Amino acid sequence: MLKEWVKGERPSDEEISERLEKARAALAAKQIEIKEKGLPVLVILDGWGAAGKGSVLGRVIKGLDPRFFKCETLSQPTSEETRRPFLYRYFVRIPAAGKISFFDGSWMGEVTARYMSGDISEKQYHSHLISIKRFERQLNDNGYLVVKFFFHIDEKVQRKRIEALLEDKNTRWRVSKGDLQQNRHYKETFKVFDTYLETTNQFAAPWYFIDAESRKWSELQLTEILLSSIDTALSNMESQKSAPQIQNIFPMKHIPKLSEISLDKSISEEEYKKTLDSLQKRLGELHNELYRKKIPVVIAYEGWDAAGKGGNIKRVAAALDPRGYEVHPIAGPEPAEKSRHYLWRFWNRLPKDGHIAIFDRTWYGRVMVERLENLCTENDWKRAYNEINEFEKELADWGAVIVKFWVHIDKDTQLARFTDRQNTPEKQWKITDEDWRNREKWDQYEVAVDEMLQKTSTDFAPWHVLESNDKKYARIRALQIIIKSIEKKLGK
Amino acid sequence: MLKEWVKGERPSDEEISERLEKARAALAAKQIEIKEKGLPVLVILDGWGAAGKGSVLGRVIKGLDPRFFKCETLSQPTSEETRRPFLYRYFVRIPAAGKISFFDGSWMGEVTARYMSGDISEKQYHSHLISIKRFERQLNDNGYLVVKFFFHIDEKVQRKRIEALLEDKNTRWRVSKGDLQQNRHYKETFKVFDTYLETTNQFAAPWYFIDAESRKWSELQLTEILLSSIDTALSNMESQKSAPQIQNIFPMKHIPKLSEISLDKSISEEEYKKTLDSLQKRLGELHNELYRKKIPVVIAYEGWDAAGKGGNIKRVAAALDPRGYEVHPIAGPEPAEKSRHYLWRFWNRLPKDGHIAIFDRTWYGRVMVERLENLCTENDWKRAYNEINEFEKELADWGAVIVKFWVHIDKDTQLARFTDRQNTPEKQWKITDEDWRNREKWDQYEVAVDEMLQKTSTDFAPWHVLESNDKKYARIRALQIIIKSIEKKLGK
Repeated sequence: MLKEWVKGERPSDEEISERLEKARAALAAKQIEIKEKGLPVLVILDGWGAAGKGSVLGRVIKGLDPRFFKCETLSQPTSEETRRPFLYRYFVRIPAAGKISFFDGSWMGEVTARYMSGDISEKQYHSHLISIKRFERQLNDNGYLVVKFFFHIDEKVQRKRIEALLEDKNTRWRVSKGDLQQNRHYKETFKVFDTYLETTNQFAAPWYFIDAESRKWSELQLTEILLSSIDTALSNMESQKSAPQIQNIFPMKHIPKLSEISLDKSISEEEYKKTLDSLQKRLGELHNELYRKKIPVVIAYEGWDAAGKGGNIKRVAAALDPRGYEVHPIAGPEPAEKSRHYLWRFWNRLPKDGHIAIFDRTWYGRVMVERLENLCTENDWKRAYNEINEFEKELADWGAVIVKFWVHIDKDTQLARFTDRQNTPEKQWKITDEDWRNREKWDQYEVAVDEMLQKTSTDFAPWHVLESNDKKYARIRALQIIIKSIEKKLGK
Repeated sequence: MLKEWVKGERPSDEEISERLEKARAALAAKQIEIKEKGLPVLVILDGWGAAGKGSVLGRVIKGLDPRFFKCETLSQPTSEETRRPFLYRYFVRIPAAGKISFFDGSWMGEVTARYMSGDISEKQYHSHLISIKRFERQLNDNGYLVVKFFFHIDEKVQRKRIEALLEDKNTRWRVSKGDLQQNRHYKETFKVFDTYLETTNQFAAPWYFIDAESRKWSELQLTEILLSSIDTALSNMESQKSAPQIQNIFPMKHIPKLSEISLDKSISEEEYKKTLDSLQKRLGELHNELYRKKIPVVIAYEGWDAAGKGGNIKRVAAALDPRGYEVHPIAGPEPAEKSRHYLWRFWNRLPKDGHIAIFDRTWYGRVMVERLENLCTENDWKRAYNEINEFEKELADWGAVIVKFWVHIDKDTQLARFTDRQNTPEKQWKITDEDWRNREKWDQYEVAVDEMLQKTSTDFAPWHVLESNDKKYARIRALQIIIKSIEKKLGK
């Protein structure tokens, strides 16, 4: 792709200055529109070392209102970041609606450098390329504008620039080891960049090459392309509220419908106590091993109101070392969360490797409550099945143990528990009007839950239905399933 | 991508038979829904030689109604087809709404084989990959379901299959030279396939790998994936009428707005005659050279009613050898054309190499009359700018000379010509009520034309505005521009 690229003709300096003045003014005006219409914009500057990304970025932002944009320089991941999935540090930095984020360097730099140094295998590299394509497409599908620039200079120009920087005491620090190495292995790097660019060049987020031999000309190319990209995105916002669902490509596990599940399973008090003790002990041991081996665990709880999620989670948590787990109760999103991709708040809550995160309600809210209460569009929730599968695939590729529970009861049991809560003063806080309203929508929820189970029970993150008419039985099952999943990952 | 693929577990024969029975029945039922809802479906079977594509296809279609599907075996292009852009023979075969087309072999086979044999260069190969991605995405954006299967077997299995086929007199003919060569160079071919698959794997048309060691299992995988793909496509049809515009990545030529163009240019009768003669003579000579060098020419005429398109075309055609050109007057689409991608009828009218096609009105109807008369959705015409640029890029990559004219007059001149037509008996056929209605929408048309000129005046296919208040002046200009464009291509 880079190989086939043909540099356009550079206009005269006079023309560049004239067009630049116009383009700068237009971009300054455009940021107001971005703000008003709530468009989130992610601008990525990649390319060769010493190609002038940093200084061009410095010029571009000069005319912008600092309240509306942010610059991020993404070089090496911190030690905290390396303990998360590789997309983590990028996902948590996506802009809010109405804001522009400029990334000086992106996942491209990280991934190609790690591949060339042998830090990740060929296989991991290609898996990362797929992750990147999914990430950029998801942003686009969720209304983000993603504009990717590659600053190109040839081997000679790069060498001259590096030499010039090295000669001057004041600029010497700007030449990194990576830059020097890149120039020494220019041809090899070129090949890797070329494949990366071709593979990640997608219609939802195409690559733009910047002829970076002159700063002013670079700035003009970037600004003009950015302007036309913003116009297209704003026009899409107006006439197109969402992107179509894409095809599922993940292998699925067979899972029965809720109506096919018998709820008559139970356990005696005596057996419960005995089994609970031994299972909790076992889970505690495994937690230590997970911690030593740096394997992360994500446990997701969904289920009917009053199905016994809270008590179930309590029994799991009781077995764990408090320094190594966290429970995340999930309610409606905060304003900062609402103004971003709906999975953002879950990316932010991912555990470090070796740690366990337990989610009391999850990202599946998108295809249940948000679907049924019209908190998102039909296309939003229809698209979400695949988006969630892709999210969980990131967790699986990272090496996480993923356990997803649907805590299941029948309608009568729910009524009995609601009534009990209503009539028992110390339990009254647990029952709200909303619970009753949700109960009225039981049948609609059942349709949504069935569809969710069918469409998101992937090979790598299958659902488990916990029969919870007998809460104790469900607790034992949950512990057994968690233990088995961890043991499988540990090769036991 | 192929490299990283992990074969799923093959179910028991019993389970396969059981699921297959269900899946076949479901597919037979689904074709009615496809027909009723008007979904066009393109199913592509690619993969290794002797992987069983043909026989699986034979099984799949057994249960289907032959009125609703078509099978195409695409091996070598005919000599007629090689004289057209490489996508031509695929584009003209796309299914109509409500029909399924099965392609036994696709552009993948042609392109990878030509690349491996050295028939096309590395650069051409990568340019073809981009064309393929555009083609598949355009189909998807225009409501087509494109399902791509790759039948995979390993080197050993392929060798055994080929040997078995060769041993039997009745099957010997099914082993092609290509199959033998493929097996001999399995590893090399694998690498090329792998890159092809990774590059052309896009969300709009993902690749599905079929573990092709058993026929029945192959059929089951294909049928189940096809079914779920159809469901997603039908669901998108319901809730999503169109795809968003994508970003422009083509370099643009600056072009003034219509209102900035002065229309006072004219030519004397004497000079007209003299110049016309010499230009026509020159064009005739160039036509011969084009024919010898097999360079195709596409000339597109758009313009205001009564602007003088007809007379202009006449003067160009008069200079040409009638065996080497064709004029295509474009009216509203026929039913067979309406039920396919709107560019289909233009792909069908492309000239052979060395020939000239003159279009009297063109594919730009999409962003003018279809836009203003609501004959397509807003997203359809907004998307069309890029789709048309991509179409013309195919023509340019093929080596065509592309000349696009906007024949321009002012409103007063149009009125004078309309009135003249009205009052002259032998010209009355040229003026209709529709012309008067269009005239009332002049201002709306002007907005649409300006937008069209701005968004489709690419580097490789720029617009030329012909000032045609003086028709003779416009004819001379047209001939000059055509001649210059051809001379440029011929390196003169």
